[in-house]
Amino acid sequence: MSALHGSNLIAGKESSLGTAKFRSTAPASGEALEPAYAEATPQEIERALALADSCVEYLASVPTGQIAGLLDGIAAEIEALGEELINLANKETGLPMARLTGERARTTTQLRQFAELVRDGSWKGVRRDTALPDRQPARRPDLRRTLVPIGPVAIWPASNFPLAFSVAGGDTASALAASCPVVVKAHPGHPGTSELTAQAVVRAIASSGLPAGMFSLLQGASPEVSLALIQHPQIAAGAFTGSLGAGRALFDAAARRPVPIPFFAEMGSVNPLVLLPEILEQRGEATAEGLFQSVTLGFGQFCTCPGLVLAVEGAALDRFAQALRTKFQAGMPGVMLTPSIARSYRSAVERISGLAGITAYRNPEFASPDGGPVLFETTDQTFLGNEDLRHEVFGPATVLVRCESSKRLMDLAKRLEGSLTATIHGTPRDLEENRPLLALLTRKAGRLVFNGFPTGVEVCGSMQHGGPYPATTDPRFTSVGTAAIERFARPMTFQDCPTEFLPRELQVL
Amino acid sequence: MSALHGSNLIAGKESSLGTAKFRSTAPASGEALEPAYAEATPQEIERALALADSCVEYLASVPTGQIAGLLDGIAAEIEALGEELINLANKETGLPMARLTGERARTTTQLRQFAELVRDGSWKGVRRDTALPDRQPARRPDLRRTLVPIGPVAIWPASNFPLAFSVAGGDTASALAASCPVVVKAHPGHPGTSELTAQAVVRAIASSGLPAGMFSLLQGASPEVSLALIQHPQIAAGAFTGSLGAGRALFDAAARRPVPIPFFAEMGSVNPLVLLPEILEQRGEATAEGLFQSVTLGFGQFCTCPGLVLAVEGAALDRFAQALRTKFQAGMPGVMLTPSIARSYRSAVERISGLAGITAYRNPEFASPDGGPVLFETTDQTFLGNEDLRHEVFGPATVLVRCESSKRLMDLAKRLEGSLTATIHGTPRDLEENRPLLALLTRKAGRLVFNGFPTGVEVCGSMQHGGPYPATTDPRFTSVGTAAIERFARPMTFQDCPTEFLPRELQVL
Repeated sequence: MSALHGSNLIAGKESSLGTAKFRSTAPASGEALEPAYAEATPQEIERALALADSCVEYLASVPTGQIAGLLDGIAAEIEALGEELINLANKETGLPMARLTGERARTTTQLRQFAELVRDGSWKGVRRDTALPDRQPARRPDLRRTLVPIGPVAIWPASNFPLAFSVAGGDTASALAASCPVVVKAHPGHPGTSELTAQAVVRAIASSGLPAGMFSLLQGASPEVSLALIQHPQIAAGAFTGSLGAGRALFDAAARRPVPIPFFAEMGSVNPLVLLPEILEQRGEATAEGLFQSVTLGFGQFCTCPGLVLAVEGAALDRFAQALRTKFQAGMPGVMLTPSIARSYRSAVERISGLAGITAYRNPEFASPDGGPVLFETTDQTFLGNEDLRHEVFGPATVLVRCESSKRLMDLAKRLEGSLTATIHGTPRDLEENRPLLALLTRKAGRLVFNGFPTGVEVCGSMQHGGPYPATTDPRFTSVGTAAIERFARPMTFQDCPTEFLPRELQVL
Repeated sequence: MSALHGSNLIAGKESSLGTAKFRSTAPASGEALEPAYAEATPQEIERALALADSCVEYLASVPTGQIAGLLDGIAAEIEALGEELINLANKETGLPMARLTGERARTTTQLRQFAELVRDGSWKGVRRDTALPDRQPARRPDLRRTLVPIGPVAIWPASNFPLAFSVAGGDTASALAASCPVVVKAHPGHPGTSELTAQAVVRAIASSGLPAGMFSLLQGASPEVSLALIQHPQIAAGAFTGSLGAGRALFDAAARRPVPIPFFAEMGSVNPLVLLPEILEQRGEATAEGLFQSVTLGFGQFCTCPGLVLAVEGAALDRFAQALRTKFQAGMPGVMLTPSIARSYRSAVERISGLAGITAYRNPEFASPDGGPVLFETTDQTFLGNEDLRHEVFGPATVLVRCESSKRLMDLAKRLEGSLTATIHGTPRDLEENRPLLALLTRKAGRLVFNGFPTGVEVCGSMQHGGPYPATTDPRFTSVGTAAIERFARPMTFQDCPTEFLPRELQVL
């Protein structure tokens, strides 16, 4: 059993200079967990960044095989933690063991996918234009272009993926794969899981022979640590997964720096789902079951939870709505990730339940303040009249909007904000008759799902997990799948560079 | 001869609703030019954006061949303007006819390169992961990923490339190539050249059968037009070429929007050039000649003008400096692009000349306020003590910093801000002995030039014209070369989408 020290890990070394401490809470019991964690101090942040900065050039020069080996090594070290990691994550987050076991597999798969990507090397898209010495009016030089690491990357993990989007999750894996040093600001909801994982990363770095300074873990429950990190001159890019409020605050800080830096925040979204008439007629009940499963998967704590359902009034919608209500009325309570997420969910549910023109359906045995899955029903006019309804409620709730006509549905869809996903259910005829709606939903999301549900994000090269604001702060990037590496690399052209001084991948062009 | 109307061009139609007017100035004579131009009003901006927005979905669905045809068509229409365009640009900017003729060729080449890129289609990097229906514990869906247009793009052209970085320049060409509608805010230094070019674009759009709303030209010399444009909810991305002050102001406005949008500003840079000892010994005089040519090319009004030269003290540096002084002391005055650029240049030269520890070398026949090429010489300590010296002076000036030692040169290089380019002159032995310096310069720039000069940016696939701030606001993108299109496209994944509803390029995967 590994000891938890409650400290920061600066370049492999424990450090707890500060006197401010915090504890996480076991969501299932409400119990405060041991040990207490030392908030990173300004000196510790400074030291983590100075060390990260000091190994940028070295990391950029390391053979890609060594970086790939590190990624594989981190995966193996995580596996070697065995059930201890799963047990601790379960205690800190309340997520079920089976889910966490699956999430661990996703985490190690991600690391190995990036190892593969780095070994293959083609992601850099190297290009060359050869010299034309005799061209008039001027010679063309030899030009070769590759991608180089952007520099030290700061990462803010998610509460809802304590393994796959945390210390050694997709953001860290993609930044390391790009040969960038990484400084992780641990999520205060699972500081122990973070420390245990960070120890695994540190062991893998030590075995790889790479510099310890390439990875540090900072602990902190206060905004000060995050702000000091995003404002630090030696951070070159940032990545965040979490709420709109926190993501936007960090984005604003990144943009206001004397030297602004790229900052990618994935902040969840409403993930609209549209049910077209013919399929609603044909498969309404099966769709209600699938939708209920998707909304309540992981107790609704997924970025891709479908929080908005649009359909046109009629008998088929009545039957679908009735089937859906029945499911929500039998919904069971669940454990939320942190006390603050639980509070936010309850307060959003109460606020929306109190709006005029909204009907809420839930299990009467588990009324507020305990919380449980909730279905809200309303009309398109009420929906458009309430700004509140247009934003994500993080948790197992969804809003079914009964639209008076397909035109009104289209008008409503035009006014949707950006989402990670949009989903459409339709027969071939439905889809053919609604091509303008398909085109419109493409504008609103990063992934368009047909006759399925948006939860269950496949980790693969063709995944896009991103989308227009507020889903993310930059729709041109993704945080899931191998393309996530593109956030942390920048193009560099070498002009007339002698072969021996070129990056390896340009020497062979 | 085409008539100049002094109006905005909104979706192909002349519009001058406003009463505020401005005139550009002929830099050679100081004369105010006709006609007066109507500043775009809020209503005109609104109309341009509503029309741009209304054709987003249609443009996204258009066969790529039609977009390519439009780009070729714009090139042909620009050529059809003949000498009228060159004459007008010469009158408005003071740039020589030969330079403008060359720039026109660059402009049409760029347009045709993007047409080629769009026809080829491989820039989208399409990917597919096929469905695995029997996978456990869950089926893998069919996932296909492509790039889709980001939406309406606002463009702020450069003063120093009235053709190649203006109305139909690289930014517009790359945004149109990405199938995005474009709204150009004309540079007030060359409103007539802008109008003439916009008329050519409008004719090409009409011939192509594409919607007129995909292109509008807004005129304006006041910041209000630019701010209204960048703040408009229907703009999805922006691109700018110009000064740090204006670029940063627009970047800040883009980041502060309720819905922040990607904004790429290329703001020039100091473009450091390092002379290593052995090559300075061997080729000092030839290098002085090449450097003088590069600094004074286009009267120093290029973003890649080498504004900072670093070398270690010694007899070879003395000889080089003497050769360089002689050239600057025989330098000839030139015409600057706009009265305000001329004022800024004179004031920067006066300010720097007045600093302690700086010696200025220039042609005594053409002293201030006329302006002319200037060489400043100083030591590494004086350089590091004067924040003023670290920023770009736009014009034919460069600062030669005599470093006490190679260590002091390295220390100075560490403190350089980001640049579009960095240049190193060295023999193979010089370079071998200075690998850490090469690695450091790679961190500071987007293009590393060996034994050459940074001016003369090749327009090709392997060009990177970008770099860390303040060279640009995002070092992951370029504004020259075909990769410039990546600024205006975003990834989109289609999950289990029936073939007939997929974008064409995904249907054949």
